[in-house]
Amino acid sequence: MSVINIAQKFAQFHDHWSPKVIAELNGQAVKVAEVAGEFVWHDHTDEDELFLVFQGTLYIDFKDRTTVKLQPGEFYIVPRGVLHRPRTETGQEVHLLLLEPIATKHTGEVAHALTVSRYDRL
Amino acid sequence: MSVINIAQKFAQFHDHWSPKVIAELNGQAVKVAEVAGEFVWHDHTDEDELFLVFQGTLYIDFKDRTTVKLQPGEFYIVPRGVLHRPRTETGQEVHLLLLEPIATKHTGEVAHALTVSRYDRL
Repeated sequence: MSVINIAQKFAQFHDHWSPKVIAELNGQAVKVAEVAGEFVWHDHTDEDELFLVFQGTLYIDFKDRTTVKLQPGEFYIVPRGVLHRPRTETGQEVHLLLLEPIATKHTGEVAHALTVSRYDRL
Repeated sequence: MSVINIAQKFAQFHDHWSPKVIAELNGQAVKVAEVAGEFVWHDHTDEDELFLVFQGTLYIDFKDRTTVKLQPGEFYIVPRGVLHRPRTETGQEVHLLLLEPIATKHTGEVAHALTVSRYDRL
């Protein structure tokens, strides 16, 4: 593999809620995503999911706990089985890095207009 | 768990070559380390290892390929079984984030003065 510059990866795409795989290790995928607005409520039965913010402010809502607010340089791990909904402030774009098992679907088992069936690689 | 601010983690310690576990997910550990000078040559038989730089310039030497140079915002994955030696320029400190399986020992199977037997948690 080669050195991966994260900012350069964010510069290569601009579609929202469509994570791109930039690396894999130990069965995990490193993905980058640009998001704006509200995503769909979902969970991942067997997979913990790490959200690390590079630009903007990301909110993660939960059904049973306080909303998490993430600024650049901050991350949060949503445990497996926990319903969550990522979102941004209205009109704001957020750049984030995701870490999760390669097999993870971004909307969990929820079929939604935002669901993508495969992840592009950058 | 709570929100993790990576810069705040780096501010909490200053010993070199002694990774601190700041989170775990899917059998992987997220660690932060402050390093300066040369580490020991080693490999990890079954574990890929991700190095993401937050401050300074990290070099990773290999026996059989060109040295990798990492600046802040860049990462590299050392594949399992590949001998490598992280190092910095003389007198320079580097802050980096590591991602690898929880069981990984930082010097692989090499017993060295720098080897730590357990990783502190922050």
